[in-house]
This record gives sequence, structure tokens and C-alpha cells, in this order.
Amino acid sequence: MPPRWVHDDNAALLTDLYQLTMLQSYFDAGMNDTAAFDLFIRRLPAHRNYLIACGLDDVLHYLETVRFSSESLSYLKSLPHFSAAFLEWLGAFKFTGDVFAVPEGTPVFANEPILEIVAPLPQAQFVETFVLNQIHGQTVAASKASRIVHAAAGRTVVDFGLRRMHGADAGVKAARAFYIAGVDATSNMLAGRMLGIPVAGTMAHSFVQACANELDAFRTFLRSFPATILLVDTYDTLAGVRHVVQLSRELGAEFRVRGVRLDSGDLDALSRQARRILDEAGLNDLEIFASSGLDEHSIHRLVESGAPITGFGVGVKMAVSADAPYLDNAYKLVEYAGRPRIKLSEDKVTLPGRKQIFRRTDHDVLALYDEALDGEPLLKPVMVGGKRTDAGRDSLHDARMRVSKAIRSLPARLLALEPAEAYSVEVSPRLRALQDRLLGSVNVLDPTRQLSAPSPRRPAERS
Amino acid sequence: MPPRWVHDDNAALLTDLYQLTMLQSYFDAGMNDTAAFDLFIRRLPAHRNYLIACGLDDVLHYLETVRFSSESLSYLKSLPHFSAAFLEWLGAFKFTGDVFAVPEGTPVFANEPILEIVAPLPQAQFVETFVLNQIHGQTVAASKASRIVHAAAGRTVVDFGLRRMHGADAGVKAARAFYIAGVDATSNMLAGRMLGIPVAGTMAHSFVQACANELDAFRTFLRSFPATILLVDTYDTLAGVRHVVQLSRELGAEFRVRGVRLDSGDLDALSRQARRILDEAGLNDLEIFASSGLDEHSIHRLVESGAPITGFGVGVKMAVSADAPYLDNAYKLVEYAGRPRIKLSEDKVTLPGRKQIFRRTDHDVLALYDEALDGEPLLKPVMVGGKRTDAGRDSLHDARMRVSKAIRSLPARLLALEPAEAYSVEVSPRLRALQDRLLGSVNVLDPTRQLSAPSPRRPAERS
Repeated sequence: MPPRWVHDDNAALLTDLYQLTMLQSYFDAGMNDTAAFDLFIRRLPAHRNYLIACGLDDVLHYLETVRFSSESLSYLKSLPHFSAAFLEWLGAFKFTGDVFAVPEGTPVFANEPILEIVAPLPQAQFVETFVLNQIHGQTVAASKASRIVHAAAGRTVVDFGLRRMHGADAGVKAARAFYIAGVDATSNMLAGRMLGIPVAGTMAHSFVQACANELDAFRTFLRSFPATILLVDTYDTLAGVRHVVQLSRELGAEFRVRGVRLDSGDLDALSRQARRILDEAGLNDLEIFASSGLDEHSIHRLVESGAPITGFGVGVKMAVSADAPYLDNAYKLVEYAGRPRIKLSEDKVTLPGRKQIFRRTDHDVLALYDEALDGEPLLKPVMVGGKRTDAGRDSLHDARMRVSKAIRSLPARLLALEPAEAYSVEVSPRLRALQDRLLGSVNVLDPTRQLSAPSPRRPAERS
Repeated sequence: MPPRWVHDDNAALLTDLYQLTMLQSYFDAGMNDTAAFDLFIRRLPAHRNYLIACGLDDVLHYLETVRFSSESLSYLKSLPHFSAAFLEWLGAFKFTGDVFAVPEGTPVFANEPILEIVAPLPQAQFVETFVLNQIHGQTVAASKASRIVHAAAGRTVVDFGLRRMHGADAGVKAARAFYIAGVDATSNMLAGRMLGIPVAGTMAHSFVQACANELDAFRTFLRSFPATILLVDTYDTLAGVRHVVQLSRELGAEFRVRGVRLDSGDLDALSRQARRILDEAGLNDLEIFASSGLDEHSIHRLVESGAPITGFGVGVKMAVSADAPYLDNAYKLVEYAGRPRIKLSEDKVTLPGRKQIFRRTDHDVLALYDEALDGEPLLKPVMVGGKRTDAGRDSLHDARMRVSKAIRSLPARLLALEPAEAYSVEVSPRLRALQDRLLGSVNVLDPTRQLSAPSPRRPAERS
């Protein structure tokens, strides 16, 4: 029976057919020189003033482990596209190149390479689909979560989104991205198991419904979990809160309930009424936790209005980044065989050549990789010759701390939930001159004319 | 090292913590009677006049295989939530219940159960998160793709979305849902391998860029794949088309190119200009394939205007269902221990009791499961006692044929791309009476009052 899940042994097939047909043709033509590809976002969605780069660790794991199993090769052999010699070569395929990347948790902007892969052309070409899939999904997730964490202004944020994420892998990877972006915990046990992320959760409406009545449900649950958060809105939110008060009287010194969760209705009004009921009963320490269709806008309104809510459970709108579920990302050839390359498709003209990003106080400069400009260079060598460097071994904690620090140093306007004036990303004079030179040299009507220009400095060739 | 991928051995942990804390409490309280849960969509997104139910096969596989491995149990043991006796019980956990479901590929509407799970309470409760995750993601994907296939009006549609889907599992599952909805092929090789879906794809811009010039790139690629589709917009679309004409003259009888692909610019104008150039060169058989940010609206415009395009490559807007990336789905307890249950949360009141959907010519009736009304009953027994029935063994082909047939019998207004008057889903008098009775019986301020009413017919108890 064919497998149902993606794993290390079949991830090589998680690619587009055209990668493999191109590889067959590169193989036939002996095209194996060094290529550099940039992964970048062409433009930010309307409601994103910054993005949080995320997903690198899963990319590096893939690059370290990607192989064609005999089972994968059998499938390819069953198709009409590939020669026996090519499939034999593919059986020995591995990634031996270099990767330069912005560390996970770094804010990035339009046209800035999140990563640059430098490897023999077939390798750098082949990995495109998987690398885009993982960086895209996790960057979408981290960028959305960062807005939500900022809106919560120090209050707890818990990811409740697994049930509506797109599939099982997103369930784990988005939880990871959310944690990097500052979310405090996840309901997802597998993310807890795989990544060590704190897990949270207590009870659902079904528990209350299955018991004879709400009070009985609370009593039953407290026998198992005395220090829990009780869900109070199954039938009537404020009646539910009063049941908690009644229990506090019944249980006296044994009463250890930590809080209540509201999951429907007007959370602002209900949280104030619940707070009053709890305070009047002397239950001032009980926290009020809120969920139900929350996003950064509704959380911001609740925080601004002073609603007495100490934590938010956030579901689908963060889970799928509902207002911006995708990014306009690209993975483009910028150099091959020592010559910078350009693409001129309408509205999609690329910046040629290998690059570096220099971050300054209030703007970035996008430059060629061998320029030495002021500012912090963001692209770090995270893999050399197919092996991770120390810079490629960030912990989840490192990435999370990086977001926390970087957000504080972003220009304040970018943290607004509404669209702000774009962060400035300048192009260095040398990079601009190279682009202009290539634009001028392209004459597609004359096929004898070369479409590339000599590189300002030829990088070391790799086999 | 912890695993990086979800697979059968750890999928039990792909759940919310609250499922397991509820199970601990059910265990402590001895609550193990039969429960019924309904999975349904509360309301359709603005731009969906119907949904295509999808994802059942992956749910049934999970229900057949879900177990807590010793590794999963070790993780749970490391948390403070669970008793040793409960974890021992969990080690023997398996699903032994019944599942009633709408077959994959069936159009469904608001409040109609896509599936109903009837099992001992802990089992039916526990599986919620995974079941929602898979049905949600695949129903989102199939529902979007069905609109795109309809807009393409018989022209080829190919899924190019893997790179921007949310993670690896979505890559495979969405390709599956798209195929069921009528998409012809996918670029995703793993979907091809796992599911037997036809794969498609030829070349990317990077191939053209890596060669000395476009004509050289085409010549190189044709040596490996003479009967291919050439991507013509890397530098200048119409110049690219003229290069194809030039090659047809060079190669004469050897020329076997099947078509060109346009991936940028004004696809309507460019396709007409490309068609003219090809026809003037006698290349009337060459097909024009288009991609670049397409969705059902842009495809509909191209088809309506008569643009000479024979196939569409559709990427991110289908991949993440960009205009409706999630559904307002729910999985609610409707019966426990022979008594129907209801939930009253504001705007989220549920219909109690086990159900059946009767499909008539132009409307459905939602009824109690033991009613015998006119129309085709949509919920079929797909699993009994934890084992699939024949009705639970649909092939991908069966589901695909079901969509094709069902779409033709939907009221025509629902196939419009713009929002239409909602399909009518009536509630049977008996079901409405049961809901009214439960609404009347609920008195949450009086905790001694039972919140459930006797079932009209008690289903057989299971252990």
C-alpha cells in the first residue's frame, strides 16, 4: 500500500514534475556549474508591514537528508519522462551546496532574500519546491502571529488552530512559527512532543453537554483537574460564572480553579460582567480567558477598551492567516556559471547576482554579496558544502528571542495593525548598475546575444 | 532526536490537549456511554454557494489505525496532567465505533452533517481534532477547485500550488481534493506517487535563464523532451513564441512541440497574439497554456472573452483557497447515553440528536436518523465497529465521478461565481420539535434540572 504521509524517505518526491524534467535536461546537456537562487517575497500583503522569516530549520534538515529512495525511483521509472542513466544519477543525488539565510525570527521586507542557495545547478534547482513550501508556510504563520502577539500587549496568547490548519504538517509547523513569533503555548500535543512547545487546554463544550448539567460537569472536571480553567458559555455565560462562584463556596479551601474561559458573545461586555461577579465573590485571582474568532483587530479592541481579559485563545484566523493566507514569494536564478542572471517577465523583473542585506537603524540596503557596507549583514552562512554551520543550528528559543528583540527595534509605524508607509529597502549603486547593465544587454530577438554579463567577482566553483 | 513528520505512529498526538484532559476526566468519572458527534459547517463563506465534502478516506484510515505508541505515552507521562491508570488505559485505546458520512465528492450545505461519529464518549471525543483537520482542509480545497474547474468550462486545469500550500501534508491532500473536484493533473510528484493522480509540468524560467539565451534553452530542452510545452515569457512573450516558430522551421518533420505556456502579462491579449503568430506559421495544432495568479474569476473572463487558451495552470489562489481559506466548521455532541444534547452558546445553538440528510430535487431535508422521508439519504454507514464498510472504500475515481455528476444536478444558480440565493436546507418537523423541546427544558440557573431529554429511540449501546 502506498504511504499516506510525507517523511524523510519520500520527501524528495514532494516536488514539481518540472524540477525533474529540467534536471533530466541539465543532465543530458551536462549543465552542472554553480548556480545561485534567491528566495524572496515580491511584495508584502496589504495588511503586513513586516514579515517574520521562518522555516529555515526544516529546510536545512531537508537539504541534509534529501535522497531518492528505491521506492521513489521506481515511481519515476514508471513514468515516460526519464532516462535510465538519469535515474541512476538521481539515485546518488544529495545536496552539497551552500546556504546563506536570514536567521529565523528576523523581520524581512519585499525583495530581500530570505535565503540564497549556491550549489551545482541541478541541486539548487531541484530543492526549490520543498524550500518554498516550508519557508512560505512558516513565514505566513509567524508574520500573522507576530501581529496578534503585539496586539495582546503582554497578555497570554495560546494557539487553538490545529483543527482548521491545512493538514497535519501545517499543524506542527504553524505551531512552531507561532511560538517563534511570541505565542505562549499551543493546544497541539504533537508540536509539544516534537518541539518542546508548552501545551495548554482544559475542556470543551462537549464535556459540559455530556454531563447532567453544567454544575455537575464542573464538579466532575475539578475532581480530575482542581486547578483548571472552566469553560462557562455552553448554555449561558454569566450563569456559568455564577456556577463557578457556587463551587468556590462549596469547596472552600479546596477551591483551586485558576480561571474561566468565555467562547462566544460580546467578549468585552461579558468579561466585565464576569469580572464583577467573580470580584464580588472575592475571587479576584481568577483569570478570564477569551476565545471565539479572535484576530489582532478584535484583540486590540479588547485590550484598548480595558476588557479584564488576561489571555486569548486564538484559532482559525491565526491558523490560516485568514487575511493574508499566502505570500507572493519567488525562488529565482540570479547567477549561473559565474555570470549574473535576470528575468524580465512583465511585473516580475528580478535583481541579478548574489546578494547581502545590510540592516541599518531605519532602512535596509540590498547589495551584492561582496560589498562591504554599513549596517548589520543579515544573510549568514548557515550551510557549507551540505553541512550546517553553527549559524544553522539555532534553537527555537534563539529564534523566539530574536523576534522579541527585533520587534522592539522596528520603526513604530510598522507595528500598527493598519497599513503603514513601507519600510525602506534601498538597492546599492553596484547592484542597480548590474541590473541596468543586464537590462541593456538583453536582446531577446537576437538569439546569438548572451543574456548574462560577467560577474564582478567569480565565486569559487564547486563540483 | 524527535520525529519531524506526522505519521501513523504519532498521529494520536496530533490533537488538542483538552481532548486528553477531558478523556482523563471521563476516565475518572467512568463516563463511557455511547456518544454521537456531528461534523458540520455552520455557514458557507460569502463566495461559496456549495461545498464539496472531502477528506473522509484519510479520516477512516486514521480511525482504523490510531494508537498511542510507547513513545507518545512517554511524552504524556512527562506532563503533569495524567494519571498512571489513565495512561495505561490510553495504551490500549482504539476506535471501535460507527461512522455515518456523506460520500466524498458530494455537495453539502450549511448545518448538514458531513459525518456523524457514534462511539463510546472518550473515543468519539478524542478523534475530533484530527477529523476536523482533515475534513476541513480537503473540503476547503475541493470546494475552491470545483469553482475553478467549472469556470474552465472543459479546458484543462493543472494544480501548480504545492510550493505555496501550507506545509507538506496539505501539498498531498489538496492535490487529492483538487483531483476529486475535477482538476486534471498536478505538478506534485508525491501526490502522483501516493494517489495515482496524473502529473504534469515541463520547465521553469530558471532553465531558460541558465542557458545562453532563450533559443538555446528551447533547443536544449527539446533534445530531452521533444513533445513538450515551452515556457515563452522569460524575457518577452511574443519573441518567445517567434522562437518556437523558428525552431519549427529548423527542425522540420522532427518538430513535435505540443504547445507554449504564458506566465505573465495580459493573458487575453498575449494568447491571441501568440495564436496568430503560431497559426501564420502553420502551427495550428500547438496549444496555448496559461498560468500566473489565476483563479475562477480570471479564468471565467478568459473563457468568456474567447481567449484561445486550452489549459490553465493554477497556483496559489487555488492552493490556499485564497478568498475563503477556512470554513466555520464544528464537531458537536448531539447525543450521549441515549439522550439528545444541545449547546446554546450565543449564535452557536446546535441541532440535537442523530441525523439523516434527505436530498430532493432542489432542496434537502435535515431529519432525525430514524425518520424515513422522501429523497436520497446522504449519510451512509462507512464504518461499523471500527471497520470500514464497502461504502467506506470509495476509490478516488468514484469520488471524482460523483462530483462530476452531482455538479450537473445542482440548481444552476449555485454554479455562478457570484453569491446566489442559498440552497434550501429544511429541518424536519420532528427534528425541530426535538430542538424546541430541549431549548424549553434547559434552565441553566437551576443546576438540578437535566439538560437532556429522552431520545425518541435509544440506539444500541456499545461497550
